[in-house]
Amino acid sequence: MTEAGLDTTALQDVLVRELAARRQELVAIDPRLGAPADRLVAFVLDGGKRIRPRFLWLGWRAGQADADTGGTDGSGVLLLGAALELLQASALIHDDVIDRSDRRRGAPATHRALAADHADAGWVGDADHFGVSAAILLGDLALMWADDLFTAGALALGVVPQAAPVWAAMRTEVTAGQLLDLFTSTAATTDPAEQEADAMLVNRYKTAAYTVQRPLHLGAVAAGAPAETVHALLDFGSDIGVAFQLRDDELGVFGDPAVTGKPAGDDLVEGKRTVLLAVARAELAASPDRAAELEDLDRGVGSPAADVERLTAILTATSGPAQVERRISALVASGLGALDRTTPDGRPVVTVGVRSELEQLARRATARRA
Amino acid sequence: MTEAGLDTTALQDVLVRELAARRQELVAIDPRLGAPADRLVAFVLDGGKRIRPRFLWLGWRAGQADADTGGTDGSGVLLLGAALELLQASALIHDDVIDRSDRRRGAPATHRALAADHADAGWVGDADHFGVSAAILLGDLALMWADDLFTAGALALGVVPQAAPVWAAMRTEVTAGQLLDLFTSTAATTDPAEQEADAMLVNRYKTAAYTVQRPLHLGAVAAGAPAETVHALLDFGSDIGVAFQLRDDELGVFGDPAVTGKPAGDDLVEGKRTVLLAVARAELAASPDRAAELEDLDRGVGSPAADVERLTAILTATSGPAQVERRISALVASGLGALDRTTPDGRPVVTVGVRSELEQLARRATARRA
Repeated sequence: MTEAGLDTTALQDVLVRELAARRQELVAIDPRLGAPADRLVAFVLDGGKRIRPRFLWLGWRAGQADADTGGTDGSGVLLLGAALELLQASALIHDDVIDRSDRRRGAPATHRALAADHADAGWVGDADHFGVSAAILLGDLALMWADDLFTAGALALGVVPQAAPVWAAMRTEVTAGQLLDLFTSTAATTDPAEQEADAMLVNRYKTAAYTVQRPLHLGAVAAGAPAETVHALLDFGSDIGVAFQLRDDELGVFGDPAVTGKPAGDDLVEGKRTVLLAVARAELAASPDRAAELEDLDRGVGSPAADVERLTAILTATSGPAQVERRISALVASGLGALDRTTPDGRPVVTVGVRSELEQLARRATARRA
Repeated sequence: MTEAGLDTTALQDVLVRELAARRQELVAIDPRLGAPADRLVAFVLDGGKRIRPRFLWLGWRAGQADADTGGTDGSGVLLLGAALELLQASALIHDDVIDRSDRRRGAPATHRALAADHADAGWVGDADHFGVSAAILLGDLALMWADDLFTAGALALGVVPQAAPVWAAMRTEVTAGQLLDLFTSTAATTDPAEQEADAMLVNRYKTAAYTVQRPLHLGAVAAGAPAETVHALLDFGSDIGVAFQLRDDELGVFGDPAVTGKPAGDDLVEGKRTVLLAVARAELAASPDRAAELEDLDRGVGSPAADVERLTAILTATSGPAQVERRISALVASGLGALDRTTPDGRPVVTVGVRSELEQLARRATARRA
């Protein structure tokens, strides 16, 4: 990042300081809480691309009249950024229980690591259930601490009344997206058009709003941004957020395991219901002579015994990957277009410097290889 | 309750209104979210003795100089009370997953009800895991909405900076208590003195702080109470809160199923590690001629095949029940004593009217039969 973007070292310092304080509160209650606290602290400090705080920061800079000359004190914004990272930790820890994922960021998932602690110590009871139980509680704690950091940041910036509705909307939206993901995988339709609509709905709430749109929004309201700037950021955020998820879906099938840190075709084995899959299924369903491919695809996706090479080959032979690339390009273009709007009195909705930062981050988020 | 206590109808109205608004936000995202939202709404509206909002309300009245003449507008306090009920809903929904409890408040636990929805609808996948997954997410949503209601109430009262640290402490403490409960049951000691110390630690954080002490504290800071009043309420709350849990432990063994709504000896089957059990074990362990009783007790407690009648008889033959009663009485006395303190200039720390309400609620909470 250039200097106008988020200072990730400063964010890390805030996370280190705040998590040490929270850990100390637990250890003061009982020293035995140090070990589970350490699991949560390490998970937050070691991981992630800090994408939500990056968008938050640029939303804040976009909302500041003096953004290109340095802006004002950003320490309150760093607390909001730390809140976003704790919220994300909570979501990932609970998601891994829900998805029964064994690994995360190249290490055992939190509930698996806790189950291993139990087994190693030779404790009584079911190690797997202990791992799930402790992970539910640590995810709850991360969510509570996220809220505490949000309040601290909003108080420091003097924007609790303005920021609270955005924070509320973001948390409700991401959880709604997770519930929809669960319900649409469970009460599953086989109609490709409905599948695509469901996948887009989940993308919109579980990823786009949560990862890009609301962090930008939160930053903008924290800066007291004018309405035109907020609207432009919301439109930019929605488009870039959906494009981000489409890239994620593409990497989940075609990504290089050495770069992504996940097994090849991970989404196929997991049975993730993506736009890519829905588009490919629509094409195969429309050609009677491709019924065998559709059958193989439907039988393989979501099966632990899936032949990933065969499934990948079937998808590659459809227009799915090219269609997804076209959509990503179109979304990036329309998202950037929103930043080129002007206010009623003819000023740009974001300054040239901030626009350049936003474009850089949007391109990184949608063209990444991991 | 007399008129100076919480108006539970007004609290219910706030819960109905706020939950309807949150439900509508979910349905606006997708109508399919109506069904899971309804499960959460019904759980909050149908249940509970509203004990935390009752203590919150009296903490608030205790902190007001004009408490005995009616006090000021309480609508912000009702929002805080609603926040406490949502927090409790979240804790219970996640607890039932952790404890693998099938029933709650005379109905299927949330994860069991959701699993039954899945099975009834004939959806794909594992109904039990679906129930657990949806319950984790609904518990998360309840926790998020609790925080949103806290912020709304604290903003309405103009006390965000004063109330936020109390809200933070309460949430960290209850989760610490739950983690300790999990870890002390798992890495279990058989030494009666250590068992008793662990049970008291869990009582203090999982119940006393969360149920009595911090709700009072939150109400007091919301009213801008003087330091002496806050300190008296904290001491009162700690004692009454621990006594409340000791009564809960007694009811968990000797409670009348027709009144408690739980099976006889439920805590014995579940293997709950209570002060009552630790005290009884200490007595049996000290008498070599009672080794058979101790062996039966240790083999039976926590076993699904436990002979509840036999275990209850063993406990009844010890001084455990009487010791627990004596402790409850002593805690109620010392808790009420804290309310009789005076300020340095000789005024009582709480008014006569509020003291009477607090005593009434303390006696109800510690002498209840259900």
